[in-house]
Amino acid sequence: MLHRKITLSENEIPTKWYNIIADMPNKPLPPLHPGTKEPIGPEALAPLFPMELIKQEVTPEKWVEIPDEIRDVYSLWRPTPLYRAHNFEKMLDSPAKIYYKYEGVSPSGSHKPNTAVPQAYYNKMEGVKRITTETGAGQWGSALSFACNLFGIECEVYMVKISYNQKPYRKMMMNTWGAKVYASPTNHTQAGRKILEMDPDSPGSLGIAISEAVERAATEEETKYSLGSVLNHVLLHQTVVGQEAVVQMEKAGDFPDVVIAPFGGGSNFAGLSFPFLRFNLEEGKKVRCIASEPSSCPKLTRGVFRYDFGDTVGMTPLLPMYTLGHNFVPAPIHAGGLRYHGAGVIVSQLLKDKLIEATAHDQLEVFDAGVKFARAEGIIPAPEATHAIATVVEEVERCKREGKSETILFNLCGHGNFDMKAYEDYFAGNLEKHEVTQQEIESSLAELDTPVI
Amino acid sequence: MLHRKITLSENEIPTKWYNIIADMPNKPLPPLHPGTKEPIGPEALAPLFPMELIKQEVTPEKWVEIPDEIRDVYSLWRPTPLYRAHNFEKMLDSPAKIYYKYEGVSPSGSHKPNTAVPQAYYNKMEGVKRITTETGAGQWGSALSFACNLFGIECEVYMVKISYNQKPYRKMMMNTWGAKVYASPTNHTQAGRKILEMDPDSPGSLGIAISEAVERAATEEETKYSLGSVLNHVLLHQTVVGQEAVVQMEKAGDFPDVVIAPFGGGSNFAGLSFPFLRFNLEEGKKVRCIASEPSSCPKLTRGVFRYDFGDTVGMTPLLPMYTLGHNFVPAPIHAGGLRYHGAGVIVSQLLKDKLIEATAHDQLEVFDAGVKFARAEGIIPAPEATHAIATVVEEVERCKREGKSETILFNLCGHGNFDMKAYEDYFAGNLEKHEVTQQEIESSLAELDTPVI
Repeated sequence: MLHRKITLSENEIPTKWYNIIADMPNKPLPPLHPGTKEPIGPEALAPLFPMELIKQEVTPEKWVEIPDEIRDVYSLWRPTPLYRAHNFEKMLDSPAKIYYKYEGVSPSGSHKPNTAVPQAYYNKMEGVKRITTETGAGQWGSALSFACNLFGIECEVYMVKISYNQKPYRKMMMNTWGAKVYASPTNHTQAGRKILEMDPDSPGSLGIAISEAVERAATEEETKYSLGSVLNHVLLHQTVVGQEAVVQMEKAGDFPDVVIAPFGGGSNFAGLSFPFLRFNLEEGKKVRCIASEPSSCPKLTRGVFRYDFGDTVGMTPLLPMYTLGHNFVPAPIHAGGLRYHGAGVIVSQLLKDKLIEATAHDQLEVFDAGVKFARAEGIIPAPEATHAIATVVEEVERCKREGKSETILFNLCGHGNFDMKAYEDYFAGNLEKHEVTQQEIESSLAELDTPVI
Repeated sequence: MLHRKITLSENEIPTKWYNIIADMPNKPLPPLHPGTKEPIGPEALAPLFPMELIKQEVTPEKWVEIPDEIRDVYSLWRPTPLYRAHNFEKMLDSPAKIYYKYEGVSPSGSHKPNTAVPQAYYNKMEGVKRITTETGAGQWGSALSFACNLFGIECEVYMVKISYNQKPYRKMMMNTWGAKVYASPTNHTQAGRKILEMDPDSPGSLGIAISEAVERAATEEETKYSLGSVLNHVLLHQTVVGQEAVVQMEKAGDFPDVVIAPFGGGSNFAGLSFPFLRFNLEEGKKVRCIASEPSSCPKLTRGVFRYDFGDTVGMTPLLPMYTLGHNFVPAPIHAGGLRYHGAGVIVSQLLKDKLIEATAHDQLEVFDAGVKFARAEGIIPAPEATHAIATVVEEVERCKREGKSETILFNLCGHGNFDMKAYEDYFAGNLEKHEVTQQEIESSLAELDTPVI
C-alpha cells in the first residue's frame, strides 16, 4: 500500500490563524486616502466591514484565535486531505516528490469558504443583516452564499452579467443556498444605472460589480460588504490551509523544499505558503514559496510596485502593491479567479523583499498540465489550480536538469466541476495563449497618476 | 466543539468486500436463458465479463479479498467521511440523531467509482484493451472513464443522445479522462443503425445504449462490457461504504436503528446497508434498512416479484427481480440514476423475505428535502441522494409521533454539482410530481410473458 493520503481528525483543525505581518522584516506601507492621498487608519473601513474584521486587518499580533463557532463550521469539510501524487510523479518521471493539499472538498468546491465563513460569522456577531459582494465566474459568490446561509444572513451577489449568462450553474448554486444573485450592471444602484444609461447592453465587469456591491453596503441599513481576496484579514483566514499542511507533511515524515500556489489577489497563495514561510522567518529555513500567475495578467512578474486602487473605478483606498494599473483589462482566460490587476499588500511587500518568488504561465501550458494531472491523479482541477500544476511541472524539469530530488508541495485549490467548458475548449483547440505585450503593460501603467513608492 | 465528522485513515480502507449471499437464509434463484428459459451457469457471462468478475458474481464465499492495487486507488478518495448532521437535526427539530456517509468526495462525485475501479482492474489483469458501457445522465460513464484511464484501458461510452445534448458537462468530464463518448444511437453498431433507419432523430434510451455497448463487447476483439449496478459483483464492491460506516459509527459511540439509501438498481443501497444487515443476519440485531425509490419508478413498493429481462430489448438473461416490466418507461425525473425498471436479484430476495423495507417519494418531496439539507449542512445533494433525505424526514416525523429518539444513518451518495439545472427547475416551479397510476403499472406488467415465480 502506497502512503498516498494524509488525513487529520476534526480536533486537528487549527485553533489560531497565523498573521505573517508579525514576522515580516519590513511591514507593509499604510493605505492612502483615494482623494487626499494621506495615510488613513482602520476607521476609514468602518462603513464597509464589521469592527472585528477591521481589527484583524490591522492587528500586529502573530496569532488570532479562531472562535469555536467557526471551527465547528470548518469541520463540515476541514481538515482537508493532503496527498502524495505518486501517479503524477510516475507520469512525469519525476526525481522530486510531489504533494498536494486539496481544498476542493469544501461544499462550494474551493478554498474560498475558509474566509467566507469567518466573514459571515463576524458580521452576524455585530448584527449585520445583509452582506453584499461581487463575483466573476462565481467561486467567491458561491462560497459567501454558503457561509451567509449557515449564519442566517442575507447574501446579495452582483455577478458580472456575461458570466451570469454564460455560467448559470454557479448562479443556481448560490440560489440553492438562498442568495440573491443579480446580473450586474443592475438598475437598482446608482453605479449600475449610470452604466446602463450609457450602454444598455453592457456585459458588465468585475469593476462595475464591485461598485454596485460597495454602493449597496454604504447606503443600506445593516448591510456590509465582503471581499474574497487581497485584504489582510482574508489572507489571515486562509492560513488554516498551510497550518494543516505543516502537520500533514510532518506526519508524512517530510518537509517541502518548494511550496507553490496559484496567484490571483493573494489569498490562495498566502493560505498555503505563509505557514511554511514562517519557518524561513523564524528559523532561517529556506523553503522556496512560488506564486503562480497567468501570463495574461502578470502583475508579480511584470508589474510595478507602487500605490494603486483596489478597484477599476478608483473608489477604494490606495494600496502599496505590485500592479499592472487599475485600468488593465486582462484577456478573458478561463481562470477567472486570477484576472485581477494587483496583488495584496502583504504579498507585494514579501516579493519586493525577495522573500517569495513568482512565475507566470500561459493558458495552453496550464491546461496541458491540468489534463495530465487529471489523468494521473483523478481529480479534475479548477483552471486557477492548473497554474500551480504548471509550475510543479517546471520545477520537476529543473530538478531533472540539476539532478536533484526535492520535495514539492502545491495547493490544489479547487475542482473543475463547474469549468468543464474550459476543458472542452482546450481539447477542441479553441483556447488561446493570451500573452500580454510589453507595450500593453506600459500603456496601462502610463495612465497611472497614483503615488510612486 | 461539536463532534461532527468521523474520519478514518487510509489503512482503515476495508481489506475485503462483504458478500451477503453467504448469510442470506434464502439464496437468490438462478438466472434463466432468455431463449430456453432454463437455468444458466456463469459461463454464459464469459463473452461480456472477465472471469474474475464472473467468479465474484456467483461466489458463495462470505468475504472476497480486495487486491492492494485496488485499495491503493481507493485511497485517492477513501475512506470517505461520516458526518453527524447536527444542523439538519436542528432544522427538523429532530428527536432522532442523523448521520450521513458522504460518497461525493470521489473524483467523479458519487459512489460509482467503488465498483468502476475493481471492474477496470480485473479487466486489465485479463488483458482486456477496451471496456464499453452505457450511461444516462453520466454518473456511471464518468466513474468508469476515470477508472479505465487509471489502468490504461480504452473506455467507450454510449450516452443516451438526449442526455448527451442536454448534459454536456458530464460528457466533457469523461473526455477529460480520455474516454470516447458517443451519442446513442450511433451508426457504428447494428443495433444503432437499426434504430436510426426507423427514426433518424431518435433521442435514444438507456435500453438502446445498452444494446450498442453489449454488441460492441460481443463483437470486438479484446473488448468487454461493464455495468454500474444491479449485478451481484457490483453490489459486492460497494460494501466498502457500509464497512467503513460500521467502524465510523463505532467511533462515534453509536449504532443505527435505521439505515437509508437511494434505490436505483441496488448498488447504492447495498453498499451502505449490507454491512449493517449482517448484524441482523449474524446476531439477530434489528437494524431497519430502507430502500428509497422514486414514486415515478416504484418497482420495490408497487412492482411484482418474477423473472424479467435486465434490459429493455430482452437480450439479457432472465433475472428473478421486483420489476415494473422491462417495457416500463419511467417519467423523465432528474434522478436519472433511479430510472430503472427492476431491482437486482439479491435486494429483491431480501425484500421478498421481509429482511429489508422500501419506500417511495415523488420528485417535489425529494427536492424539498434536498434543499433543506443543502441549507442546513452545506452540501448540495445529487437528485438521487435527495430520495434518501426525504426518507430521513419521514422517519424523523415518525420518531416525533412515537416519542422516540432513534439513530438514523443515510447514504449521501453524491453531490449535485452537475445537476444544478434540476434545482433551478425546482425553484422555478417547473418540476412535476410524476406519480405513476396503478393502470400504467398493470398495463406494463400485463405485457410480460416471462416466467412467474
